[in-house]
Amino acid sequence: MNKKVAVILSGCGVYDGSEIYESVSTLLRLDQRGAQAQCFAPDIPQHHVVNHLTGEEAPESRNVLVEAARLARGNIKPLGEARAEDFDALIIPGGFGAAKNLSSFAFDGAKASVQPEVLAVAKAFAAAGKPIGLICIAPTLAPHIFGKGVICTLGSDDDPAAQAVRELGAQHEACEVSDIVEDPAHKLVTTPAYMLAQSISEAASGIYKLVDRVLELAQEEESEQS
Amino acid sequence: MNKKVAVILSGCGVYDGSEIYESVSTLLRLDQRGAQAQCFAPDIPQHHVVNHLTGEEAPESRNVLVEAARLARGNIKPLGEARAEDFDALIIPGGFGAAKNLSSFAFDGAKASVQPEVLAVAKAFAAAGKPIGLICIAPTLAPHIFGKGVICTLGSDDDPAAQAVRELGAQHEACEVSDIVEDPAHKLVTTPAYMLAQSISEAASGIYKLVDRVLELAQEEESEQS
Repeated sequence: MNKKVAVILSGCGVYDGSEIYESVSTLLRLDQRGAQAQCFAPDIPQHHVVNHLTGEEAPESRNVLVEAARLARGNIKPLGEARAEDFDALIIPGGFGAAKNLSSFAFDGAKASVQPEVLAVAKAFAAAGKPIGLICIAPTLAPHIFGKGVICTLGSDDDPAAQAVRELGAQHEACEVSDIVEDPAHKLVTTPAYMLAQSISEAASGIYKLVDRVLELAQEEESEQS
Repeated sequence: MNKKVAVILSGCGVYDGSEIYESVSTLLRLDQRGAQAQCFAPDIPQHHVVNHLTGEEAPESRNVLVEAARLARGNIKPLGEARAEDFDALIIPGGFGAAKNLSSFAFDGAKASVQPEVLAVAKAFAAAGKPIGLICIAPTLAPHIFGKGVICTLGSDDDPAAQAVRELGAQHEACEVSDIVEDPAHKLVTTPAYMLAQSISEAASGIYKLVDRVLELAQEEESEQS
């Protein structure tokens, strides 16, 4: 296999950063499949810090890259250094960080803006025809990356996040937690994970399928080009 | 299966807390096997905070329970509330937090002291004949919990941590990253994980084996009593 996959993290912890179980499931599956992961995160302040014991906002500031480094055992680079030509695929796990630090979706919904480096990197992968996997709330980035008509899932059709991406012209498909939705034209794979998951193994089941499919698409891409 | 397993965390991040991949592998495998995990952590300040991007100590303070809550999606209790009678087994993942916050091993080696709540809870599980799994550097707690003669692994026989537990009277057994060492008399299972692991899937392989064996021992315990 030996594919190289860029993973964009958004901090470390479900309420203000990357969802930890989703991120680790992604990295574990990539490694199990022989792919090489490189983590990236934007070198910016977190939108805020949430005390995960109480759920309350904490009166302190933390940096997205520094906190995401915990999820990467220190092996992480600033997102500004990510080049699509160095990788075969891109995956972005969920967690509120994806909707608070990578974009403003948690606050602005359909009117959200995307962090400029995130948008530039994701668009570069899309332009190069390289597969992208978006997990949990991260598919709210899809209309910004691919424009109208993109097919993705955020779990249930009734979820406010699903309504928001439809407002932006995306085609939302309902999806079980253990499954994936694929947009073949855009080589985009999405899975609901903790939009629906009741347990860590439920989240992992869909994420494993997403990672496997993203790697298959990267393999097909290589076969087409050779 | 339906076993209840207490998991003691020590923060969130390899250099000052619980090793994230080890902790998530533990929780994922427990869930995959139908066991119910409850995370606990001591409500104490971290020994220090390490910037995981630079490896340098950061001039701030964080609380072990509050940071460990990130690894538990908020579903965590103060260690003081853990009662051995409510659970079938105990597992403690590694990471420097296990040797900086749960004990002083990182600084004091064979002269380390163990955080009082950690020692009390672990000794209660041992006294009740309930299986304990210790991962990575956490087996340095074993001589404190079980006394001289306890059998455990910290990976290589040459590792300073292995030498330290031998000084305390433990019997160290070298072990591959994908394997476990079992002390049948004490129902103690240990695995090297990131004492040796070169990748997340290597760490997970031994941890999955540890979790499976701990659950088997809990099942045997129940069969003996019924």
